[in-house]
Amino acid sequence: MQEEIRLKPIGVIHSAYQQQNGTPIQPSLSGDSVGWVEVFPEFEEGLADLEGFERLWLIYRLDRSNPDCPLRVKPYLDDREHGVFATRSPSRPNLLGLSCVRLNGREGRRLDITGLDILDGSPLLDIKPYVPKFDSFAVERVGWFARTLPDEVRADDRFSK
Amino acid sequence: MQEEIRLKPIGVIHSAYQQQNGTPIQPSLSGDSVGWVEVFPEFEEGLADLEGFERLWLIYRLDRSNPDCPLRVKPYLDDREHGVFATRSPSRPNLLGLSCVRLNGREGRRLDITGLDILDGSPLLDIKPYVPKFDSFAVERVGWFARTLPDEVRADDRFSK
Repeated sequence: MQEEIRLKPIGVIHSAYQQQNGTPIQPSLSGDSVGWVEVFPEFEEGLADLEGFERLWLIYRLDRSNPDCPLRVKPYLDDREHGVFATRSPSRPNLLGLSCVRLNGREGRRLDITGLDILDGSPLLDIKPYVPKFDSFAVERVGWFARTLPDEVRADDRFSK
Repeated sequence: MQEEIRLKPIGVIHSAYQQQNGTPIQPSLSGDSVGWVEVFPEFEEGLADLEGFERLWLIYRLDRSNPDCPLRVKPYLDDREHGVFATRSPSRPNLLGLSCVRLNGREGRRLDITGLDILDGSPLLDIKPYVPKFDSFAVERVGWFARTLPDEVRADDRFSK
């Protein structure tokens, strides 16, 4: 039997987006949207040397998404249903978000970032440096995404609470 | 005040690695290590169409890492300390692991994967498809990683419970 896992936010993500409707659906589709990460004081020491990195992974809680998520969803980028784990839908078991954002600077426990697809106030769970050797892969098969990947797409309300 | 967040595993990751000592430190440094993901029956429907993807992100719990993690750590790849969020250390606040693995096939709720850096029995929290447009970026600055990135590195016991 698997135990429940309890997490505590390490900070909060601040952005211009107050609701899913109209929010970019991925960092790479978000243009120059700006925001900042507030890391709680007790974790500031863990940010040492982070400023040397151009990009960061943020793992956060999709706290405005519907927690009663169906296991098949119709994603923003398609008009057909897919298994939720074959999508990047914000409504998913455990409501974990993963975004690769650009780090523009750090002042103490404030990180200035661009390329957000994240709602204002989202609880931050982890930060990891983006390292191409670990994270960047050329792949041939991208499932149903192969059909179309537009340059900019905005969310609607379909996955909201 | 930020609330505690409660997660429930959606499955278990199976690998050949029973302890941190000797385990590859990243999927891309793990050679051809094979393993499989067991998704619990109640989530199987969410895997529909996942087989079309070449690579997957796994988000999981680093349950054998030290939960009393220091905020400055000496990572496997360096002999100097860095803030834990500027490293991929397995001992970190919330103990969340992120690995991009290769998907070789799916049979029902079993996913056969290669390129693991994950301990056997690790609780799985989410699966997302790897989509280069969202996940692959050319970056110039990779912080302290710029000095050396060997082809294969194995962990030792420094971050274990």
